Parts: sequence; structure tokens; C-alpha cells
Amino acid sequence: MPNILFAARSESWDEYETPLNAALDATGLPYTLGTDIAPEQVDYIVYAPNSDVQDFTPFTRLKAVLNLWAGVEDVVGNSTLTVPLARMVDEDGLTQGMVEWVTGHTLRHHLGMDAHIVNPDRAWDTTPPPLSADRPVTILGLGTLGQACAHALTALGFPVSGWSRSAKNLPGITTYAGDDGLHDALRDAQIVILLLPDTAATANVINAGTLAVMAPGAMILNPGRGPLIDDDALLAALDSGQISHATLDVFRTEPLPDDHTYWTHPKVTVTPHIASTTRPETAARVIADNIRRAEDGTPLQHVVDRNAGY
Amino acid sequence: MPNILFAARSESWDEYETPLNAALDATGLPYTLGTDIAPEQVDYIVYAPNSDVQDFTPFTRLKAVLNLWAGVEDVVGNSTLTVPLARMVDEDGLTQGMVEWVTGHTLRHHLGMDAHIVNPDRAWDTTPPPLSADRPVTILGLGTLGQACAHALTALGFPVSGWSRSAKNLPGITTYAGDDGLHDALRDAQIVILLLPDTAATANVINAGTLAVMAPGAMILNPGRGPLIDDDALLAALDSGQISHATLDVFRTEPLPDDHTYWTHPKVTVTPHIASTTRPETAARVIADNIRRAEDGTPLQHVVDRNAGY
Repeated sequence: MPNILFAARSESWDEYETPLNAALDATGLPYTLGTDIAPEQVDYIVYAPNSDVQDFTPFTRLKAVLNLWAGVEDVVGNSTLTVPLARMVDEDGLTQGMVEWVTGHTLRHHLGMDAHIVNPDRAWDTTPPPLSADRPVTILGLGTLGQACAHALTALGFPVSGWSRSAKNLPGITTYAGDDGLHDALRDAQIVILLLPDTAATANVINAGTLAVMAPGAMILNPGRGPLIDDDALLAALDSGQISHATLDVFRTEPLPDDHTYWTHPKVTVTPHIASTTRPETAARVIADNIRRAEDGTPLQHVVDRNAGY
Repeated sequence: MPNILFAARSESWDEYETPLNAALDATGLPYTLGTDIAPEQVDYIVYAPNSDVQDFTPFTRLKAVLNLWAGVEDVVGNSTLTVPLARMVDEDGLTQGMVEWVTGHTLRHHLGMDAHIVNPDRAWDTTPPPLSADRPVTILGLGTLGQACAHALTALGFPVSGWSRSAKNLPGITTYAGDDGLHDALRDAQIVILLLPDTAATANVINAGTLAVMAPGAMILNPGRGPLIDDDALLAALDSGQISHATLDVFRTEPLPDDHTYWTHPKVTVTPHIASTTRPETAARVIADNIRRAEDGTPLQHVVDRNAGY
């Protein structure tokens, strides 16, 4: 009978206790789930990287760590963690939420909604926006989230290009890969969406050089990770007009400090890290399914590649 | 060789001359197209209801009128018009534009974007919005535009209900019909989208009674026709909180007069009749195709039912 430790900030337990028990009950496995289990008795840890557990050495019979978050950058380098680490891939909750945020903000920028939402001069300009077919979109990152967003935007008629570290072949999407493909993917893009993981290789992927190859007046959405953007380079590109607007959901420091330029810049919209949130009901089912797999001897899903960093 | 009169406001001729000639040339028919043809020589009129042509009596050999607009309320009752009148159904331009506006503003309201676009207090509230599956949407009107929007919203995960005058069976959409079905269609709807034609039967379909059956805090999008809404009833429902926001693209008087309450109401967004615009390139192909049909003896597409009014 596996013992499952829930190791996340205390407020999360209130959200997760009921759905996790429901999802584990549904597997038919016997189990014990709690926040206070002696380390040497723990088989699985349901984990948030901001938990108090940072040293995995005392967990001598640990079989796997099931991350509650999609991002693993704060745990993947932990040398005391030697068992498999699974990322959260929550299709029904997290992925769907991301598709809604990305599609919504892409359409917002495409349609020029802000000029109508705030219109103190009561301007009545009947010039229609271009159709989506005339608005090229580029997505950096073609993992689960990037592919789902690419699919939704393609269905709405946007021509979508995508870039990933290793080459991918996706129907209906123009794909580029590797360092050589990055500028080609961004060339003439009018809306650029950042859905890369946070790794040493992706830090500052949006910098003065990559900003310059986008179409003049391009717009940037960052629901991915804060360090993907060289903030000074983005602010310079906004001030020059090369970039007309940035909508940012993630930041190097969160909550975004009150005195950060992004809060007051007229060409920046801040959203409070809500683009993609793990939802307890759906995430609990993903975790329970992975524990059932481990107990059955089936390979875990979404195991992190420790060398790649995600 | 048919003579085709272009009868719309002069500025439209500048937009349409080149694409109409290109589309007519592509049919292979010989033709004459212009803005100045003697009435008794005219075979077809490419028509905007705000044109100077309001008396069709002198057009003694007229075969058909091809409307440049989707709306026909300003011409359908003209007793001097006795030949077939075709509405504009421009799938590639007008329908696609409507899908983009409706999907974009539905997601804007669903995600609560306005609180991030204008956020002077720098509020950082990480409560995620519900997922689309938990946001019931109702579309009034299931013609070409309503069906296309229903399809796009269903693909994004919204539960969509629809209402139309006569019963329709559409996969994936809960449909209601007739006077008896209207309240059922609106009951508990959180976002209501108006895509009905402007007829005597649809005037003020949004009134105190229908507003009251929607979910408390419901949101309304009107990209359809201004007279669908009883403006006083809507303003009262906004002030009481029964309706939390209305985004309106069409009005009884356009441009919306500078002193209209809608311009300054904090719960109203005005867009300047841009939700769905006939695009010259795509509309020209629709008109040329209908003229080719008429010359071939094939029934015209999208002929208006003069009794129904659309």
C-alpha cells in the first residue's frame, strides 16, 4: 500500500485533498495520502517546487515525484532527487486554459480591441481589421501547450509558424528548428507567442536580435516563462515602435514588483500568471493515473529529461 | 452581354471597381460594368441600400439585384423592386470576420481581460477564470453567421445553445426554436450573442423579460442589428448588475451619436460596426458567381424571402 506525501504550500492542500482522494479512490488502489508521513515511509511525493521539501535524501524508498506544475526549472537541477520526476501535463485543465488565454489575447491584438475598450474620444473608425489569414503568427515552443495553441489558431484561420529545439512535423503548421531556424521562424511574424520551457538555452530568446527580425509593429504574448525575454531589449523595442504591444503573464519576479516599468508602460499589458493554471480536479486525475502506472509497472507519463531540463 | 450597374455610395466604387472586374472577367462572361448606365439598359444592379437608387421602376429589363450588404432591411420592403434580391453571404470575408469578432470578444469577456488591460491599482489576482466548459453561451440566430460562430465557440470548448425562428438540428449545439423556446435558450446563459436579422419579429428581442432569465451577471455581445435591443431595458439591467457588460457593434443610429449613454457607460464597450464587413475581393467573387448563375439559368444563391424579410 503506497504512502503518498503531499508536499506543497499549505493552501494547496485545501484545494487538493478532496480531488486527490477522489482520483486515487477511482484507481482502485489502496493508498495513504497525507502531508505528514515519515520520509523513510514515503513512496511518492506530489510536489510543488516551492514546498519545504528541498532535500530528497531522507526519502529512502521514494519511487517517483509527481510535479503539480508544468514548470520544473526549480527542481530539475536538485542533485538529491534521483528518482523519476514527472511534469504536470493537464490536458483538460492547464492545456485548455492556455489555449483560451492564447487564443483570446491573439484575437484581442489582431482585432485591435484595446482601442475600443478605452476610447475616451469616442472615435468611430470603421476600417475593419485584416482577416486572420493575413496575420502571421509564430509560436516559439511546440510542446503540448504550443501544439494545442497552434491547432486552435490554425482553426481560426491564422497562418501559424512554429519553432522548437528539435525538428517537428505538424500538419498545417510551418515548422522551424534549432538555432539556425529561429530567425526564419520569426521573420515577418506579426504576433509572436512564447511557450518555451525555462532552460539555459532559452533564456533571453527574445532579445535585440530576434526582436529586429519580426514585422515592424509586431506584438508579443508571453504566457511561457519570464526569463525568455530580455526585458531591457523588449522595452527598447516598444519605445522604438518595432514592437507595438506586449502582453505578459510571467515575469522574472512574481508578483511583478509595484515599481516595475511594465505596470505603467502604455504598450504593455500585465496578466497575473493566470494563463495556465493547474486545476485541482483535472490535475488530481493525472497524478493518480501516474501513481497507478508506477504501481502496475507501466512507464510513467511526462517524465522529465534531466539533461534537457524539461 | 449583360449591363451591370454599380449603385452604391461613390467611395465604394473605388474599392470595388478592380475586384469586381477581376471576378467578372474570371467567369468568362462578356459584360459591361459601370456607375452610369441608362436604367432601361440595366440587367443587374450591384446594390447598397444607401445608394441613390430607391425607385426601381425605370429599370424595365432588370433581372436581379445583388446586395453588397448582409442586411436587407432598408430594401426588402421597397415595393418598386419586383425582381429577385440576393443578400451578401461572403463566407471568406464577412463570415470569417464575424467569427473572429465574436470569438475574440467572447474570450475577452470569458477571461475578464478588461481588468488587466486597465489596471491602475496594479492588482495581482491569481484566481484563474473558469474554463470554457463552465461558461454557457447562447447565440440568438442560427443562420450562416450564427452557425459559423457556434462552430468556432464549440471548438474552443464552450457549451453552446442556439435559438432560431424555425427549428434546426445542429451537431454539438443545443437548439431551441420559436417564441416558446426563447426563454429556455436564454435561461442561465452567461454570454449571449445576437446574430438575428432585423425584422418586425426580432425587434427588442432583448428586453426586460429576456434579460431577467439570463444568469445574474451575464454578458451580451451584439454584432447583429441595433434594433434587437431595447436600449432602456439593457441600461437598466446593466445598472442593476443583472447584466455585467455589453459589447455593442451596431446601434439604432450609426455612427453612435456623441451624446449617447453607451459611450460613457462603464459597463458598455462600443465597437464601430466592424464585426462583419463585406470585403471587396471576396464579395466581388460572390456577386460575379450569382450573375453567372443568372446568365446560365441556374437559381441565384441567397435570394431574400420577401415575406420573412431576410
